Order: sequence, then C-alpha cells, then structure tokens
Amino acid sequence: MTTLPVSMTGTRELVDGALRAAVGRLDPRTYRVAAHHFGWAQADGRPATGGQGKALRPALALLSARAAGAAPEAALPGAAAVELTHAFSLLHDDIMDGDRVRRHRPAAWTVFGEPAAILAGDALLALASEVLLEAPGPGAATAARNLAATTRRLIAGQSLDLEFETRQKITLDECLAMVEGKTAALLACSCSIGAVLTGAPEPVCAALDAFGAELGVAFQLVDDLLGIWGDTDTTGKPTMSDLRARKLSLPIAAALQAGTPESARLQMLYRRPVPSGTAELEEIARLVEASGGRAWAEKEARLRVERAAAHLDAAAPPDDVRAEFLRIADFVTRRDH
Amino acid sequence: MTTLPVSMTGTRELVDGALRAAVGRLDPRTYRVAAHHFGWAQADGRPATGGQGKALRPALALLSARAAGAAPEAALPGAAAVELTHAFSLLHDDIMDGDRVRRHRPAAWTVFGEPAAILAGDALLALASEVLLEAPGPGAATAARNLAATTRRLIAGQSLDLEFETRQKITLDECLAMVEGKTAALLACSCSIGAVLTGAPEPVCAALDAFGAELGVAFQLVDDLLGIWGDTDTTGKPTMSDLRARKLSLPIAAALQAGTPESARLQMLYRRPVPSGTAELEEIARLVEASGGRAWAEKEARLRVERAAAHLDAAAPPDDVRAEFLRIADFVTRRDH
Repeated sequence: MTTLPVSMTGTRELVDGALRAAVGRLDPRTYRVAAHHFGWAQADGRPATGGQGKALRPALALLSARAAGAAPEAALPGAAAVELTHAFSLLHDDIMDGDRVRRHRPAAWTVFGEPAAILAGDALLALASEVLLEAPGPGAATAARNLAATTRRLIAGQSLDLEFETRQKITLDECLAMVEGKTAALLACSCSIGAVLTGAPEPVCAALDAFGAELGVAFQLVDDLLGIWGDTDTTGKPTMSDLRARKLSLPIAAALQAGTPESARLQMLYRRPVPSGTAELEEIARLVEASGGRAWAEKEARLRVERAAAHLDAAAPPDDVRAEFLRIADFVTRRDH
Repeated sequence: MTTLPVSMTGTRELVDGALRAAVGRLDPRTYRVAAHHFGWAQADGRPATGGQGKALRPALALLSARAAGAAPEAALPGAAAVELTHAFSLLHDDIMDGDRVRRHRPAAWTVFGEPAAILAGDALLALASEVLLEAPGPGAATAARNLAATTRRLIAGQSLDLEFETRQKITLDECLAMVEGKTAALLACSCSIGAVLTGAPEPVCAALDAFGAELGVAFQLVDDLLGIWGDTDTTGKPTMSDLRARKLSLPIAAALQAGTPESARLQMLYRRPVPSGTAELEEIARLVEASGGRAWAEKEARLRVERAAAHLDAAAPPDDVRAEFLRIADFVTRRDH
C-alpha cells in the first residue's frame, strides 16, 4: 500500500483516541466487530497490528477547522464522525458486493457473519451522529444535519452502483452521478465539517465542501485508472482487477460511450458472462485506451483537481493549511500510475 | 390484527404526511423499497392498501409534546423520526432473522434482495436524524442525540438476541436486558421526544422516558404471552408460534430458571433441534405454566404498568393527555389473552 504524506500520519493518533472512545461505548459483541474492522483487534479479540485505513477523511476534517482559523482539535468529533460513517459504508458495502477481503484482511461479514456485520455498520452510523451532537461549539447540529444528508447521498450512489449490475446500458453521466454519491459526498463533508463545527461563515463552508466534492471525483478517476493500469505494488490488488471484476468504472463508461469501433468490441467483450484470460484482459485495456477512455479520465482528473484548487482559494484558508490540502489532493490523485 | 383505539387513528394521517415528505427525498431505488415497507406501494411500485403498522411510536411522540403543554404538531419531526428508526430496525431485523413475512406481506429483502433492503434500512436511519435536526425549536439537537443513543441501545438488544441463538444457557436478567434494548429503548424515546423537542424541563422528559421504558417491557411481556397462549385471531400468527420457533421469550426464560422438575424437562425439549408436533408444543406450554413462567410474566407485566403509571404521574401531564397515555398503555398490554 502507498503510505500517506508525513502531515497526515500525525492525524491518526489524534483521531484514534476519539474513535476508540466512541466505539468503546458499543456493547461488547458489536464492539468486537468494529475493533476488527478498524484493525485494532484480531477476530478472536486479541490486539492486532496493521489493517488500519489511511485516515484520509479525518485528516481533511482537522484541516477543515484550521481552514476556518480554529485549532484542529475543534474538529475532532467531526473527524471521528466521518471515519465512523466511512466504516459503516465499508462494512455494509462488503456484504452487498460479496467482497471477502478488506485491507488485506478478511472482511467482517466473513469472520462474524452477515447479521453481526450489518448490526456493526448500523451502530457506527448511529455513533457518528451521537459523537457529533456531543461536540461543544456552535455548529454541532448543522454538522450532524449535513452528515445525515451526506449519508443519504452516499446511499443513493451505492444504490445506483447496485442497479448498474442489472442494466445493459449505463451512460457516463450516470456513472459520474454514482461516483458523486458513493465517493465524493463524504469527502466533501469531511473537507467542510471542521469549519461547520467551529461556526465558520456559510460561504467558507460551501467552498470547502465544493473543494472536497471535486477532489472526490478526481480521487475516483485515479482509482479507476489504477484498477486497469496500476501495478500490484501500488494498489495492493492484482493487475487489471477492475477488468476481471467487470467493474463499470469511469474510464470504461467513457470508452463504451465513445462510439468507436473499439467501443463496440469492448461492449461485446465486457458483457460476456465468461471470465477473461490475461490476453483478453490486456485486449480490453487496449480497447479502453483506443476509445479514449484513458485519456478522458486522465484529463478529467486534472480538470477536477484544478476546479478543486479554485474552490479552495475561494475559502481563503491560511497559506500553510492551503498547502496541506493541496499536498493531500496531490497524494490521492497522483499515485504513481 | 387488533386495531388501535380511536385516539390513535388520527395520528396516522398527521404523521403520514411528514413521513411521506421525508421518504420522498430518497433516491428512486431506495424509495421503492421504503414505500413497500410502509405499505404505500406494492412491489412493482403501484399503490397499495393495507400493510401499514400501528403507528404506536408516532402516537406516543405526539402525546409527548402535549404532555409538556405544547401542540402535538410540535412533535411531528419526532414522530416521523421514531417511526423511521422503527422501520430501519424492522428492515434489518427481518434480514438477520431470516423472517420472510412482515405484516402479512413479503418482507422487503424477499422482494428487492438483501442489498437493497440493507441500503433502505440505512437510508431510513440517516433520514430519522436529518428530519429531527430540521425541526424548529430549542430541543432538536438534544432530541437527535437521544435518538442516536437510543439506536445504540436498540442495536445492543438485537445483538444480544442474536447471541442467544448460539448459547446454551441464558438468564432471565440477560433476557430482560435484551428486551430493554430491543423493545423498550425506542418506546422510551418515543414517549419523551416530543417534550424534548419543545424544550420541556429535563425531569419531565426523564419521567416520560421512564414511563415508556416500563411500558416497553410490559408490551414485550404481553407479546410473549400471546406468542404462547394467544389465538390466531388476536395475534395474526399461528398458535404457539414462539414455541414452534424456539424463541427465548421472557416467560420461557423465567420457567427455565425456576429450578422445578418441569424446568428440567422444558430445557430438554426446548434444546432439541427437531421440530415439535402439536402435542409436544402443548406439553411445552404446560411446562412453562407449571414452572411459573406464565404467572411470573403476567405479574411482571402488571407491575411494569404500575411503575409506568407512577412515572407518568411524576411528569404531571394535563389530565386528558394522561388519560390518553394510559389508554394506549392499556391497549398494548391487555390484548385479549
């Protein structure tokens, strides 16, 4: 796995305490599932090392408070809340998608069963709201309301993604709408939640939110490019894993919609219910490239990062905070592909 | 199904509008599942009649505002929020428990699949928080925080219930703790949420909450008695359905713990993995009665209703509100068994 810039690693310790305190309120059975998911415990409850996520969303939340001129600690309940919401969505998505592995470890539902994993996800979603509403300061209720609306958008994105599996034709616009819900909504909320909590003016909060939304789409575009052309060392996944799984990622959707002869052959190969061998996967990757799917995604990612930067400037954060936001943006959108 | 007292039927229309407005914000795919669950639509989206729940929790929420001297309308967001939370828990419980029928109709997961039903439950939980935080007035944030803590207790109860299935011995205290989470927590929240929303003094809110908590345990005790000795006309379920399903209900837990010779035989029969014929189910019911499980549950239900009434008096609601609360308490605890 790629590791985070130094500026983000300090975040994890700060947020880890808040997160552990929150999750510690859960009943012992639900706690066990959550502790396993967060990489704190093995399946039998013994302490674990590794398996933690990048804590990207909490890092953005803390920066968000600093963007509004407050101390990062003011955003701690927000940082915990967005990470809890992210964990909720991963626990449930793994069940829905039948994914058995999460961060090189068995997914919770494969260890504890589906019912316990459903319940643990539910508990983390409720806990996100509870933690946020306990925050001191002027913006707790608005932050919690934003997070609930964000969760609604996240769910809309995931439900669109589930629907795609049953449909023959999906437009690039629909695919972008899915990503705006499933990936970008929570990143947008993470980038603004600290400012909201500290009672920053609405236009500042809105600009930070827009920064995160554009960053989220850029992040997904890069992730999709890595799912086709990334190497195993960078992604931690087998090469061409998205093609193997017939994932309808953004470069694929762009290529299918291009109307080239290669689009038509791609369409035919991608719809076939039989698994592809390596030679066919390589042909599919070539067809996506020949139909302009790769070039479109690379250009769109750059464009989204530019737009994100413009929104960030509109929020007028202190220079060092601006630099850190951009360092994270650079990190999540240029992962050596 | 038993129908509600007249005083409660007016509630449904009032709450139905708020509920439909809230659920109408969901994406069309998630909306469809929710509309089916609420009995507004058939599986294919066409309008449905019937299948609605009793709207017990919203009725209590509206009364709760009146208990604090406010208009019932002040509690509408609270009434919608507790019903959304109840719906969330039913959607997910049916998946976890493998229950295929809900209110004489196919459970959502059997119609739309597990992933869509998981997502719809998630969406309703987030929506409950969103609706509540949009409420005007002084108590919205506190009400939302209470509801989130209530959801945590609800989940603790359900996770204990799931654990029971894997254990040999369960004490009556553990069984009561499960009921306090799974059934009583949300009823307690429903009975206080209207008062909290209108900014009523904390002791009034606490007394209403305690009324609901005792009422919730009484409600479950009566439900458990009906699950053994209720007739099909009253319950809408086959006779002795809880015994058939080997449900560890409160009268059973009391009987198993009694230490009588009948307890030992009950233990043996109830642990056997083979289904019981009618004669054996009748023997099991006799053993529960002979071990004092029935008498204990009947007495405990009366005791809980008395305690509930004492808490209600401590909240000092207007006379007509007190009478309505007690009418509902009577309705849910004396369903012709």
